[in-house]
Amino acid sequence: MVDNTSTKTSTDTITLPWASDFHCHLRQGAMMETVTPMVEQGGVRTVLAMPNLTPPLTTAQMAVDYGKALKLLAPSVHFILTLYLNPDLTPEEINKAAASGITAVKMYPSGVTTNSDWGVVDLKMYYRTFQAMQDNNMVLCLHGECPSDAEKGICILNAEERFLDTLRELHKDFPRLRIVLEHATTKAAVECVRSLGDTVGCTITAHHLFITVDDWAGQPHHFCKPVAKFPSDRDALREVVMSGHPRFFLGSDSAPHPRKAKQGDKPAAGVFTTPILIPLMATLFEKLGCLDKLEGFISTNGRAFYQLPVINSVNSEPITLIRSAAKVPDAFDVKGMESEGETVVPFMSGKELAWKIKTS
Amino acid sequence: MVDNTSTKTSTDTITLPWASDFHCHLRQGAMMETVTPMVEQGGVRTVLAMPNLTPPLTTAQMAVDYGKALKLLAPSVHFILTLYLNPDLTPEEINKAAASGITAVKMYPSGVTTNSDWGVVDLKMYYRTFQAMQDNNMVLCLHGECPSDAEKGICILNAEERFLDTLRELHKDFPRLRIVLEHATTKAAVECVRSLGDTVGCTITAHHLFITVDDWAGQPHHFCKPVAKFPSDRDALREVVMSGHPRFFLGSDSAPHPRKAKQGDKPAAGVFTTPILIPLMATLFEKLGCLDKLEGFISTNGRAFYQLPVINSVNSEPITLIRSAAKVPDAFDVKGMESEGETVVPFMSGKELAWKIKTS
Repeated sequence: MVDNTSTKTSTDTITLPWASDFHCHLRQGAMMETVTPMVEQGGVRTVLAMPNLTPPLTTAQMAVDYGKALKLLAPSVHFILTLYLNPDLTPEEINKAAASGITAVKMYPSGVTTNSDWGVVDLKMYYRTFQAMQDNNMVLCLHGECPSDAEKGICILNAEERFLDTLRELHKDFPRLRIVLEHATTKAAVECVRSLGDTVGCTITAHHLFITVDDWAGQPHHFCKPVAKFPSDRDALREVVMSGHPRFFLGSDSAPHPRKAKQGDKPAAGVFTTPILIPLMATLFEKLGCLDKLEGFISTNGRAFYQLPVINSVNSEPITLIRSAAKVPDAFDVKGMESEGETVVPFMSGKELAWKIKTS
Repeated sequence: MVDNTSTKTSTDTITLPWASDFHCHLRQGAMMETVTPMVEQGGVRTVLAMPNLTPPLTTAQMAVDYGKALKLLAPSVHFILTLYLNPDLTPEEINKAAASGITAVKMYPSGVTTNSDWGVVDLKMYYRTFQAMQDNNMVLCLHGECPSDAEKGICILNAEERFLDTLRELHKDFPRLRIVLEHATTKAAVECVRSLGDTVGCTITAHHLFITVDDWAGQPHHFCKPVAKFPSDRDALREVVMSGHPRFFLGSDSAPHPRKAKQGDKPAAGVFTTPILIPLMATLFEKLGCLDKLEGFISTNGRAFYQLPVINSVNSEPITLIRSAAKVPDAFDVKGMESEGETVVPFMSGKELAWKIKTS
């Protein structure tokens, strides 16, 4: 093991700190009640909760209330709260949000993913908001895709690459504002983030480290936005993770939908990884031969970027993964949903992972 | 109108010859009984029937028997019969097939689409078969995709482009063998076919002239193989059609699947256009401002390539399209299927076309 990790590995166990997931959809109602307790089950005790609810979290008070609801469902988990960038997010509201302990603001371009109908068309109109965020040391989280526009040649395959100029411009105009490019899926995005300054970070999901376009074509449970792309793009994501680059870290973008919404004539976008997240990452990192980079990716790098206290398996209670061919459940029940017998299907449904979390 | 078309257009009517569809899946059993009569309903009276049945049509006798079954269902339609390239297709069997009136042999690379499990891995092993086909003036139809292989960087987005070297090589080695690159979806394929000799033709589907990757992501009824790609690819398909290039012609690749097979957790690949084919094409060609190229694309070009008699609206009974906002049915019943109430959903389901076929 390298020096900057507290992880202890043997042939059959891995001991490491509880992980941090810097991008997660915990939903509302019955789905929230189902998936929020699964955060800890997946090996995570710090989670950044996305604000694209119905209605979206557009005020400090709404985010604070949401945080309280989540905390009741998972008392051991630290929730990082976010707001949905929108015209009501004035500099005054940003000041209030910062004073309320809200960490980040999420920008969705209009129409690119689930509940992005309220999304942004012109970023320039938010420059006063970004200035206030920079002044308050808040983080700007970007869903980095341009809306598709066939006339301009933009489709879901190049929407991320086409967005990168916007990222460069924002970073140039707000060099002290911490910006996270969320769920990078392309080599172009990896190279862009690498080229920028220390205030620009990048999350990578678990599933984008596994799948390519071939895996979501004809497999709606692998369909998400941004879509997984070429093998060369997946290679670039894996390489930057294997290199241990400190500005790349885990943001699962775990996004549960009821099975019915995934298997209809218009499957919803989103891959659900919350309950298996850290065993999934350990399985992959072992396969890639970079278990020494696991702790950095799932904890240290993101916590440093978000200016959270360092935790490690020495200064805090660790988790232990044990080698055990553990079958991922086919589906999880969602109790209390309108449609009886509704379930949510996880990534790797019915398949085996190499590691599981040891429960006491 | 230009001189080489017999089409007569007015504001509200188009009179043109019955069309030819040089790539169509007519299936077996209940689905065959449902869709075969729809060929004529869609404005087509010559149709090349694909051999990827279960089991595939691997002998002359099987193809002849299939042709008889189809003819019973649609007596006015001329069926062009095909064989599935496989190791039993010896030069002797090719001679027999040619003598039986079978026109073409279809090559599927292993594993690329519906019922391609019997597909080809190494084309060189079929060179004696190709020689016999060339000697018998038969046509080789190619599903032009390399199987996906992440190690080689091949995925469904570049599988067609990666195949083009194989097309070039086959054409070089068998310059007199007529070869059709089926269902082109990329600019690269269009440019490749343009660059080759007169013995290389190319079919384009109706749906690939409409959709891009954005339309099948999260919309299983638009999912087919090869997948629709970038807007720039669709532009290239439209441009070659608008140019009236004589070696590009309609092969719908209409591929019906029961609705249940399209909306499960692994939607089958295929778009169903048979019952609306010519009204669909007329609607598009009018939008593209190239109605003068419609007859070439849906009849003359393909018939010349396949060495079929010229038909036009003077020397044969024509069809008449009338301008009428005609709603495409949401779905068609498939009677006699094992699952009760099964349907098949057409392209443009529930949407309006600008033209419909005048029935007497």
